[in-house]
Amino acid sequence: MPEKLPIKALETALDDIVSIKLKDQRVFRGRLTSCDMYMNLTLSSAEELEEDRVRAKYGSVLIRGNNILWIQIPD
Amino acid sequence: MPEKLPIKALETALDDIVSIKLKDQRVFRGRLTSCDMYMNLTLSSAEELEEDRVRAKYGSVLIRGNNILWIQIPD
Amino acid sequence: MPEKLPIKALETALDDIVSIKLKDQRVFRGRLTSCDMYMNLTLSSAEELEEDRVRAKYGSVLIRGNNILWIQIPD
Amino acid sequence: MPEKLPIKALETALDDIVSIKLKDQRVFRGRLTSCDMYMNLTLSSAEELEEDRVRAKYGSVLIRGNNILWIQIPD
Amino acid sequence: MPEKLPIKALETALDDIVSIKLKDQRVFRGRLTSCDMYMNLTLSSAEELEEDRVRAKYGSVLIRGNNILWIQIPD
Amino acid sequence: MPEKLPIKALETALDDIVSIKLKDQRVFRGRLTSCDMYMNLTLSSAEELEEDRVRAKYGSVLIRGNNILWIQIPD
Amino acid sequence: MPEKLPIKALETALDDIVSIKLKDQRVFRGRLTSCDMYMNLTLSSAEELEEDRVRAKYGSVLIRGNNILWIQIPD
Repeated sequence: MPEKLPIKALETALDDIVSIKLKDQRVFRGRLTSCDMYMNLTLSSAEELEEDRVRAKYGSVLIRGNNILWIQIPD
Repeated sequence: MPEKLPIKALETALDDIVSIKLKDQRVFRGRLTSCDMYMNLTLSSAEELEEDRVRAKYGSVLIRGNNILWIQIPD
Repeated sequence: MPEKLPIKALETALDDIVSIKLKDQRVFRGRLTSCDMYMNLTLSSAEELEEDRVRAKYGSVLIRGNNILWIQIPD
Repeated sequence: MPEKLPIKALETALDDIVSIKLKDQRVFRGRLTSCDMYMNLTLSSAEELEEDRVRAKYGSVLIRGNNILWIQIPD
Repeated sequence: MPEKLPIKALETALDDIVSIKLKDQRVFRGRLTSCDMYMNLTLSSAEELEEDRVRAKYGSVLIRGNNILWIQIPD
Repeated sequence: MPEKLPIKALETALDDIVSIKLKDQRVFRGRLTSCDMYMNLTLSSAEELEEDRVRAKYGSVLIRGNNILWIQIPD
Repeated sequence: MPEKLPIKALETALDDIVSIKLKDQRVFRGRLTSCDMYMNLTLSSAEELEEDRVRAKYGSVLIRGNNILWIQIPD
């Protein structure tokens, strides 16, 4: 296995804004405040988007890793 | 892994009101009375919401962690 | 982890009437006669409900934990 | 955990007629001839039911535990 | 656990004709040429059936155990 | 367990043309160039088929084992 | 097991352009910048395609391995 692992890219994104696509096709956007090796993670100032429209604002959310399709992280 | 883990955010929310989105798109809201590392948890004064409308009141419920999409926790 | 775990709430409900929502949206109601750490459980005098209407009566049933969404337990 | 476990209720039902609901909503009814801790099990004289109507007769079947929703067992 | 396990019933069916229902509702019928404890198995002279009609003939197939609903085995 | 295991049948098919049905009902056909015990595998000259029609050509693909329904292997 | 494993083919594709089909039928295309043994991986310059049309551009994304159907890798 290469030294640079995908999960490290998530850790590097701590305190940055990320977007997360869930299996139910909803997208969450917010500041990444914690994460673990299962991709469980918490966001602050979290918004739920549907087709790029803000559908709801939630403050802080804990998202369960096993239902995540992908996470957009800063370059 | 960073020291502050997502599951700790759930423990910090004990005795607070949380909202929980399940895979079947229903939302539960209630007071968090216990949780474990799989995100299994119990709520008291639990309400089931659908599109922000209260659909049912259940008293105490035990929610199975593996069917949770996300949990809204206090800031 | 806090000392009081969600699965303990299920054990405390032994011999009580509980309602169980399954992934296929059906609800079972009956007396909880046994449970294990995977939330596998048995009910006696079990009824299957659909939209609060009794749809079938089954006597004793064994419900597989991994298909449970939530369990309503006595306060 | 209590001494009496759900899986023991299944073992007690060996040689009895049981009904089994699968995730695809079909029900199998037959004589329970073996079972294991994953709820894998075999039935003899197995019938497949749909809405209480016998849809097919299969003789002996091996049912995979992870696709079982519930099992009706004798009281 | 009882001595006679469900997976043994599958081994006993080696070299016999079995029918296998998959999660996508298709049925495979063929001669069982190997199996393992996860219910992975191989068939020779395999046919795919849909509503009892032969839909395709495949020769030898390897079927992944975790997508099997049930297996009809000889009495 | 019998000595001849299903996964061995896959290894025996290395360098042969195989067809693979995925959970999303698409079929891949190509030359099997590697496989592991989870049925993860690689194909060269891979084609994606839909209802026996070639839908796309991909060159080399890595297919994740847990989404495979079945694999047609040479007799 | 043969010496050449499928996951090695993914490592060999590091720094190359790959296309990834997810369970929700979307395809991601981008430069593979990291991967692990669960097929978790990161892409840079990632585009999301639908029916070969670019639907969105994301910069860097982390894709969760368990929702991947297949990965097109360079020959």
